[in-house]
Amino acid sequence: MRKNNTNSANVEHPEVTVDVLIFTISDNKLKIILTKRGKDPFKGYWALPGVFVNMNESLLDAASRALKEKTGVEIEKVYLEQLYTFGELSKNSKSRVVTVAYFVLSNNYKLTPIKSPSVRELNLFSVNRLPELAFNHKMIIKKAVDRLRSKIEYSNIVLGLLPEKFRLSDMQKTYEIILNAKLDKRNFRKKMLGLKLLQPVGEKDLQGAHRPAMLYRFISKKTILFD
Amino acid sequence: MRKNNTNSANVEHPEVTVDVLIFTISDNKLKIILTKRGKDPFKGYWALPGVFVNMNESLLDAASRALKEKTGVEIEKVYLEQLYTFGELSKNSKSRVVTVAYFVLSNNYKLTPIKSPSVRELNLFSVNRLPELAFNHKMIIKKAVDRLRSKIEYSNIVLGLLPEKFRLSDMQKTYEIILNAKLDKRNFRKKMLGLKLLQPVGEKDLQGAHRPAMLYRFISKKTILFD
Repeated sequence: MRKNNTNSANVEHPEVTVDVLIFTISDNKLKIILTKRGKDPFKGYWALPGVFVNMNESLLDAASRALKEKTGVEIEKVYLEQLYTFGELSKNSKSRVVTVAYFVLSNNYKLTPIKSPSVRELNLFSVNRLPELAFNHKMIIKKAVDRLRSKIEYSNIVLGLLPEKFRLSDMQKTYEIILNAKLDKRNFRKKMLGLKLLQPVGEKDLQGAHRPAMLYRFISKKTILFD
Repeated sequence: MRKNNTNSANVEHPEVTVDVLIFTISDNKLKIILTKRGKDPFKGYWALPGVFVNMNESLLDAASRALKEKTGVEIEKVYLEQLYTFGELSKNSKSRVVTVAYFVLSNNYKLTPIKSPSVRELNLFSVNRLPELAFNHKMIIKKAVDRLRSKIEYSNIVLGLLPEKFRLSDMQKTYEIILNAKLDKRNFRKKMLGLKLLQPVGEKDLQGAHRPAMLYRFISKKTILFD
């Protein structure tokens, strides 16, 4: 980054916002958390939770604040990565905003009421059935869903949507929900176990009608790209 | 992105810059284009070519302008993708800048003199032998090199560093230079041909001391992730 030079401070420049795309799985659907805006512009529309970036906070600090203030989510408890920065000119406005979007995976999101003048309501929406959205947020969500679908194919980030311990069938179900497609059980097991990223936890899940299934966990919680 | 609300315009907020990381291969080395700064701060230091984002241009427009004005590179002739947006607080400055970095691959970069008061000199540096750099640019370059090394393993972006037609041995050499490692010829050929992204162009390269080698080209110039 570049320190201000003496000229630039006098010139109008874009503002910076951070928006967070929080994905979770609920009712066997991939869902995203949206807020109903309490203020203009787009008052009453659903939108991504977001904040203007302050002078005294990093982008990550701003993402943390957007999560906490607008949705009650704590940044330490979720998988988070920067998605993309959007900076197209808006059609009918003299204003100019650059938006840094963060992509978040939460494995146990519970809707909690938020006290903020800018959030009238908070809800989960299936990514396949989105309401009308403020700003360019529909396009941003589409890009994030594409990233998620692509990235689970070559990395272990699905761990952000799974509990600490899980059956391989839970993991397959999570992949199927995200990809919106049925997967072959044999191939899936073979691929996932072949990656050597999982270890059995030495316990079996005795619940359910079928024979007990082995429980697994990820050996590392670091993001790993598959070979 | 979010339109200004009436309050935000009166509050100080970060400025936005775009920096471009232009990689090319020269003398069998992976190199990056740097500019020697003609102005403070960091006057006389080497730095990434970059510009402040204006109110009337998109981020991509700003990247195009940085390429053209600071290095003479035309955006249409290179592979370009957004790398990452950096927005840490700087230690000893009241100013606050958010930097959107773009990652550029050029297969035929020629150093050309640039007339700009902010560029005193332009040069190519091996990524393994960087000079002392302005701002946080060393860290940004490291991140970009890591991205390049990682992404050639699961995508076809190496095409940005290859000519239109090439021998498989040229392609292997390019991978080896980027990865800074020797690759096995048989495995490399098998993997690359197995991806079905290349097609023979029906010509052979008759130059060189050895028997003529088949020339290939990429079937599509779109970015493709390997399965």
